[in-house]
Amino acid sequence: MTTLTATAPLDLLADFPAIPQGWAYLDTAATSQKPQPVIDAIMRGYARDYATVHRGVYQRSADMTLAYEAARRRVATFIGGREDEVVFVRGATEGINLVAQSWAIPNLKPGDRILLSQLEHHSNIVPWQMAAERTGAAIDVVPLTDDHRIDLDAMAAMLTDRHKLVALAHVSNVLGSVLDVKRATELAHGVGAKILIDGCQAVPRLPVNVTDLGCDFYVFSGHKLYGPTGIGVLWGRHALLDAMPPWQGGGSMIDRVTFEKTTYAPPPGRFEAGTPHIIGVTGLHAAIDYVDAIGLTRIHAHETALVARARYALSALNSVRLFGPADSAGIVSFEVQGVHPHDVATILDEGDVAIRAGHHCAQPLMDSLGVAATARASFGVYNGASDIDALVKGIERVTRIFG
Amino acid sequence: MTTLTATAPLDLLADFPAIPQGWAYLDTAATSQKPQPVIDAIMRGYARDYATVHRGVYQRSADMTLAYEAARRRVATFIGGREDEVVFVRGATEGINLVAQSWAIPNLKPGDRILLSQLEHHSNIVPWQMAAERTGAAIDVVPLTDDHRIDLDAMAAMLTDRHKLVALAHVSNVLGSVLDVKRATELAHGVGAKILIDGCQAVPRLPVNVTDLGCDFYVFSGHKLYGPTGIGVLWGRHALLDAMPPWQGGGSMIDRVTFEKTTYAPPPGRFEAGTPHIIGVTGLHAAIDYVDAIGLTRIHAHETALVARARYALSALNSVRLFGPADSAGIVSFEVQGVHPHDVATILDEGDVAIRAGHHCAQPLMDSLGVAATARASFGVYNGASDIDALVKGIERVTRIFG
Repeated sequence: MTTLTATAPLDLLADFPAIPQGWAYLDTAATSQKPQPVIDAIMRGYARDYATVHRGVYQRSADMTLAYEAARRRVATFIGGREDEVVFVRGATEGINLVAQSWAIPNLKPGDRILLSQLEHHSNIVPWQMAAERTGAAIDVVPLTDDHRIDLDAMAAMLTDRHKLVALAHVSNVLGSVLDVKRATELAHGVGAKILIDGCQAVPRLPVNVTDLGCDFYVFSGHKLYGPTGIGVLWGRHALLDAMPPWQGGGSMIDRVTFEKTTYAPPPGRFEAGTPHIIGVTGLHAAIDYVDAIGLTRIHAHETALVARARYALSALNSVRLFGPADSAGIVSFEVQGVHPHDVATILDEGDVAIRAGHHCAQPLMDSLGVAATARASFGVYNGASDIDALVKGIERVTRIFG
Repeated sequence: MTTLTATAPLDLLADFPAIPQGWAYLDTAATSQKPQPVIDAIMRGYARDYATVHRGVYQRSADMTLAYEAARRRVATFIGGREDEVVFVRGATEGINLVAQSWAIPNLKPGDRILLSQLEHHSNIVPWQMAAERTGAAIDVVPLTDDHRIDLDAMAAMLTDRHKLVALAHVSNVLGSVLDVKRATELAHGVGAKILIDGCQAVPRLPVNVTDLGCDFYVFSGHKLYGPTGIGVLWGRHALLDAMPPWQGGGSMIDRVTFEKTTYAPPPGRFEAGTPHIIGVTGLHAAIDYVDAIGLTRIHAHETALVARARYALSALNSVRLFGPADSAGIVSFEVQGVHPHDVATILDEGDVAIRAGHHCAQPLMDSLGVAATARASFGVYNGASDIDALVKGIERVTRIFG
């Protein structure tokens, strides 16, 4: 790993073997590239230390179980929660579905209301729609401010004691807008509602401490945090998890099985049916070690500087319209007037600049912005000024081709 | 990879870097070790080709999407199903839960019955108990024959037109007993029931063709098939999948999302919410290539020979009682009289022999066998005669210590 000094901009590209020289990878909001220490950890897991967890009597399996549970502790300290509040899931999507199925469905009844926002990712909409359909609860949608943040003043005016659950993105995956989670939590708790925070885009970009934030549930995905695919975290307050029924049945989540009566293990085991994604978990541990060694405060400063540079340069091009607030976290959405975002992305790709174009799994936000799609550039620890320069050069080329 | 001739016993140990010289790894029924080609594929996925799937406009993402969908086709040809019938899940446990939630709950009503067997793994019991509780359906349990197979004659006598679903293990994870799936399917279909087969232990040990078998759903886990952790397959007849509601909501599984009305994608996408376990899928492809190059017929012959050798040698020890049929597939359960299975496993571990001791997530089977636990040795492509010799030597030592 590259050694860092406290004030230098991040210069970590050499840690990322899948980013060739000259490739501007600007799709980190979709998934992040993996640093060598994470790849090495995955390799060690499969090529040296491999065994199952929790049940093997032999030493190799006992060691792997220790590593698996050490990763759980590492997640807990990383986000400021308790070890027995950390549930390993496939990703943030599964974490939200778990809460929708095991908390919302048993707790909601007709007349109850769920509060979401206009900028949520589909994964923080559809599970609640499914739970609402099952329970007869209704969904309300907090609008956005003019600069495309979740409007907490509007939320304060909307909340009633019929609202039992609020679910909001910490950082918008399209706009980079950062939510004031503390205030949102106070508002939700003020009417007795629980609050779930979708932290997918926040955990890789900001320091997150669930105890400080005060929320009830927090979810994120490993693959967006420089970790392996197929692994994520649901953090929930222990008292809530403990009162929730299991969602999936199988090995590990039981206490005792008979055909007459099955009893369940306490959380987090209750929610981890079947052989877990062992190497996903140990790989996530390595990813957390990696970002923590850099420091989330530094990563945030680095990405904020990149966003500022990108917004400044793009706004100098008359053809570009920017979305989202000026201080967005690591993500910039825009359109090139008169050019379909897919064409923008295709032309950028020809110049070795990888951005995303589409609805970004946020169709209600697109509807609200009055567009079918946006172009989106998103940054990670490996990006630098040259990537912004390549982006701007690419957009200039787009404008020339379509101008 | 080692070159094989048609008649030689398998000699593949050199392909498995995590098995050191002299270590008898006999816990493959819990999870298999990984061959170098699988590890290499995972490495290439993270260190060279990494990108998200399905939505990226740029070339790297388009290529990864092709690789992801090529893996789906590879699974389909491997098990004789159609590409659009292959759903990627976390593992067999999740596959069974998906069917329990999305097929059983909408289709079962009070008075309906589910048929399981006495030897099922908890993952093929608990999801049905949860579905039965939700729907008011009841569960019947097929007993075992004297040599510990699922008793299909008893099943034939038990089935009624109230039975809507049968769920059985293709190969018992404790005993290695092989089910005659074709006959079980004919019996189930004879009363109009659907049949799900838990193929976790079968797919790595036998040639499996779901079209020939005739079943309705088939599930297996990648990590038991020499592949990565956190990935598995649910195969289901397309007409059944197409009629099933989604289980988890999120990105990728939708057609169109608005707050008023969300419409869902056709299968298999409908059941793959969120960013998938991309490298798990491409790693599974490599694992299937690996076992298919050896040939499942050869693997089955190899493991059958190891089982025969193990049963012969263990039965020569007066202290050992064997469970399961003589022709079990790659798995031998036993007890050493007067010695707790955990003590057996611990002493074997001191001699570098790794076996499993416990209830193997099959407590109802333990109840039926009249034991709290068994010792279990299970084989894979990397095992050979020397592993059996080490096992027998270890058991002799157990007998000396406790004798």
